[in-house]
Amino acid sequence: MSDEKLTPRNIDFSEWYNTLVLKAELADYAPVRGCMVVRPYGWALWENIQAALDRRFKETGHVNAAFPLLIPMSFLEKEKAHVEGFSPELAVVTIGGGEKLEEPLVVRPTSETVIGSMYAKWIQSYRDLPVLINQWGNVVRWELRTKLFLRTLEFYWQEGHTAHATSKEAEEETLRMLGVYADFAINEGAVPVVRGVKSECEKFAGAVQSLSIEAMMQDTRALQSGTSHFLGQNFAKAFEIQYLDQNNTLQHCWTTSWGLSTRFIGAIIMTHGDDQGLILPPRLAPIQAIIVPIFKSDPETAAVMEAVNRVQTELKAAGIRVKVDDRTEVTPGFKFNDWEMRGVPLRVEIGPKDVEKGSVALARRDKPGRDPLTGASGKSFVPQAGLAAVVADLLTDIQKSLLERATAFRDSHIFDPKDYSELTEVVQNGWAYSFWCESSECEAKVKEDTKATTRCIPLDREKGHTLTGAGGKCIVCGKDAKRKVYFAKAY
Amino acid sequence: MSDEKLTPRNIDFSEWYNTLVLKAELADYAPVRGCMVVRPYGWALWENIQAALDRRFKETGHVNAAFPLLIPMSFLEKEKAHVEGFSPELAVVTIGGGEKLEEPLVVRPTSETVIGSMYAKWIQSYRDLPVLINQWGNVVRWELRTKLFLRTLEFYWQEGHTAHATSKEAEEETLRMLGVYADFAINEGAVPVVRGVKSECEKFAGAVQSLSIEAMMQDTRALQSGTSHFLGQNFAKAFEIQYLDQNNTLQHCWTTSWGLSTRFIGAIIMTHGDDQGLILPPRLAPIQAIIVPIFKSDPETAAVMEAVNRVQTELKAAGIRVKVDDRTEVTPGFKFNDWEMRGVPLRVEIGPKDVEKGSVALARRDKPGRDPLTGASGKSFVPQAGLAAVVADLLTDIQKSLLERATAFRDSHIFDPKDYSELTEVVQNGWAYSFWCESSECEAKVKEDTKATTRCIPLDREKGHTLTGAGGKCIVCGKDAKRKVYFAKAY
Repeated sequence: MSDEKLTPRNIDFSEWYNTLVLKAELADYAPVRGCMVVRPYGWALWENIQAALDRRFKETGHVNAAFPLLIPMSFLEKEKAHVEGFSPELAVVTIGGGEKLEEPLVVRPTSETVIGSMYAKWIQSYRDLPVLINQWGNVVRWELRTKLFLRTLEFYWQEGHTAHATSKEAEEETLRMLGVYADFAINEGAVPVVRGVKSECEKFAGAVQSLSIEAMMQDTRALQSGTSHFLGQNFAKAFEIQYLDQNNTLQHCWTTSWGLSTRFIGAIIMTHGDDQGLILPPRLAPIQAIIVPIFKSDPETAAVMEAVNRVQTELKAAGIRVKVDDRTEVTPGFKFNDWEMRGVPLRVEIGPKDVEKGSVALARRDKPGRDPLTGASGKSFVPQAGLAAVVADLLTDIQKSLLERATAFRDSHIFDPKDYSELTEVVQNGWAYSFWCESSECEAKVKEDTKATTRCIPLDREKGHTLTGAGGKCIVCGKDAKRKVYFAKAY
Repeated sequence: MSDEKLTPRNIDFSEWYNTLVLKAELADYAPVRGCMVVRPYGWALWENIQAALDRRFKETGHVNAAFPLLIPMSFLEKEKAHVEGFSPELAVVTIGGGEKLEEPLVVRPTSETVIGSMYAKWIQSYRDLPVLINQWGNVVRWELRTKLFLRTLEFYWQEGHTAHATSKEAEEETLRMLGVYADFAINEGAVPVVRGVKSECEKFAGAVQSLSIEAMMQDTRALQSGTSHFLGQNFAKAFEIQYLDQNNTLQHCWTTSWGLSTRFIGAIIMTHGDDQGLILPPRLAPIQAIIVPIFKSDPETAAVMEAVNRVQTELKAAGIRVKVDDRTEVTPGFKFNDWEMRGVPLRVEIGPKDVEKGSVALARRDKPGRDPLTGASGKSFVPQAGLAAVVADLLTDIQKSLLERATAFRDSHIFDPKDYSELTEVVQNGWAYSFWCESSECEAKVKEDTKATTRCIPLDREKGHTLTGAGGKCIVCGKDAKRKVYFAKAY
């Protein structure tokens, strides 16, 4: 319930976010420190995210499975970089059925190890390859500073794990899934992302190379929104994932892993939300259109509700996710605020005058106070006849507008500083896109001076930020640099 | 891969089951004792089960959410019966982030406690009621004797948790969800179930009353396949789930919980499977029809594959889940066995002669060696034109036949023993349906003498086993008994 206003974003962005998550009833704090409860409205959003991703995974030949939550501690220790990266964050089961366990079990922080052990068992021959499996589930990482959706002890995600006969195929898979994530983020979430390679320092513990999609939040901080890792033969060697090739020679597989989590809900909130609350992209919104009936006296009620029910039926038949707010204990004005807080893309108001005229009033969430059709200020009154097509078109337009707005915001906050001094300034309110020599010393210096980290080295030509084949000079040390990187403060 | 035959069911039913689960690639043993990996084929089956249930949950007004995996130990201790029931089976996290935790955290064995704590926070007024939330997830119970799908340390399930203003509403909900489970089991799984009340001894730890659906496996043992619990105010009082009623008086809520798990996959296997392998009910089968191309020489290949692809496209367009087995390294005979092992309801064979005649050969899984249309022995050759409709009808018929066969088997193995001596005999190869005085002494005596337990006291008139209003005499002690109960050995 939204009985109080949010702290405006420009006053305290973090407070705005925390309050919005609670008021929109997306999530709540669980009784265990750092854990969250995803409430029904937030989970419905996650279910739509899952469906949009799962469809893409299946179209690219992947299948789902389920691997165990509990992993023997010794498994993590088989891959050196992996255990070093994850051991500070582990939740460990030491007692089972009232007895102390001989070997402690780790609640999975990620599943490369246990899945690797199964792949070693299942894969015998080149005919068994590739193995393309995804898992939807929960993982636990003992984080110290937590924030709903962005960083919690337990979170929900999918983790894809694939095994291939050649390095080339595994590298192609890593790129393919990064492309799936970027396509999903941009076309379903209306979250414009850049994609690229993580630095050695920022890569996944155990990977040869990590790729990521990175989004810019409205406070200009970067949010890593999905990652895809080329694991080389690191896990294949640690777990003896081997196959007999066409020449009957035993070979190690090449593996990948890739994940996207409930963190993406944070990306949606901080990309699109405004001071009235959440704004959801129509393609992922659990409710795309909310119908609010308006009547003052009893005799009006029946006529209004007849129209409301008819409109609801028509919109539903057109495949639009629609809901009627027929609560009697609160006013229409309360309902308007409530659904604005929850970010429903389109509001349909039906009152006695609309019944007379055969019309409805429409209000779009992304442009409050504007005629949703013409863009002029004030509401528009649209005929009930043919409404489903108008609503469908408007939802498409809202989706498009959100992406355009977010892209314009992002592009106007990516800078090409002329020197290091300017870099240290621009990363206070934006990203720097600069040549970097790829040394960890320069990376560390930027982090120390500005708190900004390297986000990714773009793989392809991003609009307005083309790679120059010629290379340039590192913005930090002035030495030769082949590629440009994004420097930004990050979540 | 099914290169060896299964142990026949009548030789060793348990061995038949264990081998089938592995050979059909439904699941595998995980590296941690008692845990399982659900392989892609098994998980696809579970996804279909989830979809069929989730649709029913949403139709009855429920929404999904996610509550935390880790529960403070003290929460379990708030409900006395609950902690007594579950404490022997807990997995306990004692270390987090490298440090010993002040309070140990339990990996949820079920979520009444943590969900109760959130409901106490969310529910204020009668206007907030009912709360109708379901969660899909994993739970851990430290079982000693495990068996894939039937009893594993970690398993997958859904758990519904609802809160109501009155006892009546909560009792109605408990019954409604039992009805949803029975409808699902019978009409999706083709698993005939009886439904009824569990005895005091067999009820859920913390419930006032537990209801269950019970299915008969082919070895005549009972499998509890879903449960629905009326929790009274037990958890509402333990967690202070309270609301202000219309008179502004503070009241405790009435709560329910209900669950169905991956155990149901075990029910499907043991209800329908035969000595060739799994038989899946078409409504839940990941693959409903498998197309096997047949050709000996190269020139035949192109013509056969053209027909195969065309038929696949047509079946897919008709909404049939169809797959082509185009492997070249194995023979058609191998493929027949392989898909029989995996229980695909219908096989479509297309060879050079079929191409000539514009026909296909059909073989149904539930009646091997029979003409699928006429029931006569031998295959039937059906025109390619109009095949989708024929296949759809056959799938409907297979679904119906499986339910009929299982129902007939069950009904022919439920007995009405005339005295205790006969009861001890019939429960060796069937269920006894007898009057029982509802004392735990008589229940314990049956268990000690025969290993059979009370399964449930039917709520409604099951076909052929009508309740008599008049009552009768307890089959064990001879005292007055109001109701009949099923006695059976159980999983």
